[in-house]
Amino acid sequence: MPDFCAAYGCSNERSTQTRARGITFHLFPKARERRRQWEVALRRAGFAANNRTMICSEHFKSADFDRTGQTVRLRDGVVPSIFSFSAHLQRPEAERRSTPSRGEEDLPLDLSQKKPQPNVRATGARRKRLKRAAPDHLYALPACPEAVKAKINAASVRLRKLQRIYYKIDEEVSKLLELKAQLGGDDGKHQFVLKTAKGTRDYNPKQMAIREKVFNTIISCFKRHGAETIDTPVFELKETLTGKYGEDSKLIYDLKDQGGELLSLRYDLTVPFARYLAMNKITNIKRYHIAKVYRRDNPAMTRGRYREFYQCDFDIAGQYDAMIPDAECLKLVHEILSGLELGDFRIKVNDRRILDGMFAVCGVPDDKFRTICSTVDKLDKMSWEDVKKEMVGEKGLSEEAADQIGDYVSMKGGKDLAERLLQDPKMSQSKLSCAGLSDIKLLFSYLELFQVTDKVVFDLSLARGLDYYTGIIYEAVLTQAGVAPASSDGLNGAEEGVSVGSVAGGGRYDGLVGMFDPKGRKVPCVGVSIGIERIFSIMEQKAEASAERVRTTEVQVMVASAQKNLLEERLKLVRELWDAGIKAELMYKKNPKLLSQLQHCEDSGIPLVAILGEQELKDGVVKLRMVATREEVDISRAELTAEIKKRTSQA
Amino acid sequence: MPDFCAAYGCSNERSTQTRARGITFHLFPKARERRRQWEVALRRAGFAANNRTMICSEHFKSADFDRTGQTVRLRDGVVPSIFSFSAHLQRPEAERRSTPSRGEEDLPLDLSQKKPQPNVRATGARRKRLKRAAPDHLYALPACPEAVKAKINAASVRLRKLQRIYYKIDEEVSKLLELKAQLGGDDGKHQFVLKTAKGTRDYNPKQMAIREKVFNTIISCFKRHGAETIDTPVFELKETLTGKYGEDSKLIYDLKDQGGELLSLRYDLTVPFARYLAMNKITNIKRYHIAKVYRRDNPAMTRGRYREFYQCDFDIAGQYDAMIPDAECLKLVHEILSGLELGDFRIKVNDRRILDGMFAVCGVPDDKFRTICSTVDKLDKMSWEDVKKEMVGEKGLSEEAADQIGDYVSMKGGKDLAERLLQDPKMSQSKLSCAGLSDIKLLFSYLELFQVTDKVVFDLSLARGLDYYTGIIYEAVLTQAGVAPASSDGLNGAEEGVSVGSVAGGGRYDGLVGMFDPKGRKVPCVGVSIGIERIFSIMEQKAEASAERVRTTEVQVMVASAQKNLLEERLKLVRELWDAGIKAELMYKKNPKLLSQLQHCEDSGIPLVAILGEQELKDGVVKLRMVATREEVDISRAELTAEIKKRTSQA
Repeated sequence: MPDFCAAYGCSNERSTQTRARGITFHLFPKARERRRQWEVALRRAGFAANNRTMICSEHFKSADFDRTGQTVRLRDGVVPSIFSFSAHLQRPEAERRSTPSRGEEDLPLDLSQKKPQPNVRATGARRKRLKRAAPDHLYALPACPEAVKAKINAASVRLRKLQRIYYKIDEEVSKLLELKAQLGGDDGKHQFVLKTAKGTRDYNPKQMAIREKVFNTIISCFKRHGAETIDTPVFELKETLTGKYGEDSKLIYDLKDQGGELLSLRYDLTVPFARYLAMNKITNIKRYHIAKVYRRDNPAMTRGRYREFYQCDFDIAGQYDAMIPDAECLKLVHEILSGLELGDFRIKVNDRRILDGMFAVCGVPDDKFRTICSTVDKLDKMSWEDVKKEMVGEKGLSEEAADQIGDYVSMKGGKDLAERLLQDPKMSQSKLSCAGLSDIKLLFSYLELFQVTDKVVFDLSLARGLDYYTGIIYEAVLTQAGVAPASSDGLNGAEEGVSVGSVAGGGRYDGLVGMFDPKGRKVPCVGVSIGIERIFSIMEQKAEASAERVRTTEVQVMVASAQKNLLEERLKLVRELWDAGIKAELMYKKNPKLLSQLQHCEDSGIPLVAILGEQELKDGVVKLRMVATREEVDISRAELTAEIKKRTSQA
Repeated sequence: MPDFCAAYGCSNERSTQTRARGITFHLFPKARERRRQWEVALRRAGFAANNRTMICSEHFKSADFDRTGQTVRLRDGVVPSIFSFSAHLQRPEAERRSTPSRGEEDLPLDLSQKKPQPNVRATGARRKRLKRAAPDHLYALPACPEAVKAKINAASVRLRKLQRIYYKIDEEVSKLLELKAQLGGDDGKHQFVLKTAKGTRDYNPKQMAIREKVFNTIISCFKRHGAETIDTPVFELKETLTGKYGEDSKLIYDLKDQGGELLSLRYDLTVPFARYLAMNKITNIKRYHIAKVYRRDNPAMTRGRYREFYQCDFDIAGQYDAMIPDAECLKLVHEILSGLELGDFRIKVNDRRILDGMFAVCGVPDDKFRTICSTVDKLDKMSWEDVKKEMVGEKGLSEEAADQIGDYVSMKGGKDLAERLLQDPKMSQSKLSCAGLSDIKLLFSYLELFQVTDKVVFDLSLARGLDYYTGIIYEAVLTQAGVAPASSDGLNGAEEGVSVGSVAGGGRYDGLVGMFDPKGRKVPCVGVSIGIERIFSIMEQKAEASAERVRTTEVQVMVASAQKNLLEERLKLVRELWDAGIKAELMYKKNPKLLSQLQHCEDSGIPLVAILGEQELKDGVVKLRMVATREEVDISRAELTAEIKKRTSQA
């Protein structure tokens, strides 16, 4: 376990970097009284030091140090005194209760305060401060499980106390809502806010028809590749999602604690998949899963970005020979994007190991890999100059390191590029990079056999945000500016004209399942997620632009009558048709006008009308009318079903 | 607006009943000082009386009354003093703050209390008390919107204060979870609870294959009847669901308030459908919607009762001639249940208006209709004796009224029964009943034309719980004991052997859409919901019992090799097949054994194997093996696709 400073809000770790900055680390005193003094000074709820707990030199005054000897020592009897507590912890010592030993009094949350602080969520500055302080150094805990357990117990007690208040809030909210409903009801009007939740939408029948078509194309491709399907609940235990999404965790929707388990809406389908594999001890499977996921993101609905949206995942789990399943994932993306006829596309490929190796040889410090990686990931939306500015200015990378990265991330190619980089004097120093490059080479040889290399590019600027990738990563983008869903978005329209944005992405994640397995057993996985919402948006715009009408039902024939008082005859006939498997409908009126019945067929694209009249009934026939041509023929009742099937089979 | 007593926890309403009990109602004093005294005495948060606010005689001592005059009057200067506050409100006056005018101090929730009450949720008795007090008489508010608004404002202020605390709880919970994760990580093991949330389940590939089959049958029936489909978000604004489900509202899942809107998971698909219609001003549509809904119910998973479950709804909205769409809904249920081959079934039909009319003529007081109705609803699970006991004992109905109801609810029949009841001297007194009975008659005449009367029974004991039904109601039950999903449930097995339980239900709800429309415009609706989870359970048990294996993929051919070093050839061939639309797979090994490739086909039911070897490559053929018969034939590469299609077309 690494040595972190135990102070609230401090993230210093004992390392070559901190040593270079002159920071020293000091164990807590062994004497009980003295140790207690330090613990109190830290003002951390439920905190207990052990023999390995440390605090760094930044929390002592310079006069506290004895720098005369070989090692920097603290003078006898000093207590750490320099901390950056968040605002509400910064009351002077004098104001504090005289009983700091009562665990609950150490709570940063002070329930007894007379004047509440300004709303925690109201001011940006304060929120930031809280955010910085939030992690509270959990990894700097005493290493022994007992101490951690004690801390958990203390926190649980505190939590139960808070929850009692929480349930009251619940009651208050319900009352408020009832009051609002009451207010609406009083003057005879209903004042419901008639809307869907922010960032969500209904699908109307036309959108559903398009959605069904897109899903059919995708599912038939998944099935062609022999995938099974599974489904998981829309919510998971909160702890199942904890620690999987890094910074994005704040976008997870939690359910209210109504007693029972703490639950969260799924954030993607990958983590539930990994949980499913570990829970059922499945070591190999090829499955697809199409379902909605939830993110409290800023919606950009015109560009197909919602808070509730479909994911459409295909994953291959199992210990297999290198790059064979990975190549199949890329082949599958190629098939799907071709099949959907969205225009030209490119699939960018890279490898996490190549990125990490590249960062190492360019001199990026280990602890900056992830943050530099996420800056590189912005290259599809920002110019290199801006990316470099962020690396150097915000993230504190050296100018030289940034420039070296700049050289690499501009490289694009195929198998040849991988071969060249394997010979690159700098890149070849990294074993990680070499492993990644060899796999890229192998991957491309399989992609050649699959005949998809025309669309696949090895692109060193591809980074992808998610923490759990361990090998190959890829992302598909549409390159035809014409179908850009961004066109309806005023702000980013210009930028997005260049790249229409990602419509599929994925990669290899060999460690995720092991995070769930009680024994840490790994199940290697590789998969792809189709960006179905963006595809829906494009298809909807295409349908809008095209003259062709989207039918929302599949009705083949309308049962109509030309005269009055034929409801019973219509009901009899429509039953015959339904029972013969014909898609049929009739108007729910006793005596509908023939014209309105025909109009309905025009409106909803029903191709045939079966018309009943006194004469037809007498002759034992039905007049079958073709809506498009207005042609009418008399068909005997016995032959009607076959005739309808024949006439609608080509449609 | 009715006159209710404004006291906390009191539900007395000025009516003939309360007058009979000698309860009198008294307006609040007009003088400001005096009125304030009463308001304080009530101890209701943010409460302000107006000139119409009343309080009943039960809250005054008998000495407070002057009963000498014609009307009972309160003596001058008296203040109401008798209340049943919930425990934490019952501290003596002396202890209360001296500043009752500061609105927030009136809060039942006392944040400043030093010793918290025992956990609110811990004791059953206390919970009951809270529940009784919870509605807090919202309907007894001052009638003028201004006063209600003031109350809302006061509540909002209080709420914001509470929310500040609430966000802290959130932080605490997150910390606790991180601590737990930390604890797990420390000793190298992962202590995740590997489970799905209570009352939910994953669907494995086999269950998904069954689910897909069931959905296909149902959807093709919906489409045969000309339905479109829509989709709505999984969560709605909380207020959209408020006041729609009566007592069941407590089963709604709420989302945590993470800033922004208050959201709840949908409880059914009907309320979102009504919201959709009102929001889009749609006055007629025939739509189906298949999606998951959420209820915090006690799960009974062996009987197919989950907290997350599918609903499968078909509804017809629009102003149409009586009973035509209603009859189609029943025809549709008949088709679906026949198509799924679940065994014999019955569809019970009744009408809300017949029930209400029956209750009226049997002497049930108006305010007991709903509660007696919900007792009648239990007749499918309880004997008449027990139902009667509940009516008389728990619900306070008179013995005679109960017996009269007993006579009616035992009646079952068809059109003839409706005709007989229209002549019934008692029943015919109710206009409501007669309207319902005439519609039942008309319905049966249409059902005869649809040829489904063999399965439909007019059953006066059918009640159905939901508040929003206004006319026809129906419910389908399986009558074949053999497929009872209850068999795996030890407790209720005996009872459930009689009736396997409802597999579909629905009815007419003409008022629901109007609840959402700003102008209260009504859109009549009738619909049916298929109890798909119970059907899944039955189908799964059938599959379990049958010898036939459920295939989870549709793979037609496995591309295999008999010798080593043929991976590239296998990749080439599988690409050819995929691109020709054949469902194909290969093993992700460089050199898999032929036996393990054949074994995989046996295991997963793949009918064909395309085997490559040196000889076949030389001859330009593929050896096609029929897995079932072990027959092998050499097919030229050019003809392979056609041959595979031919050989798998009958499967």
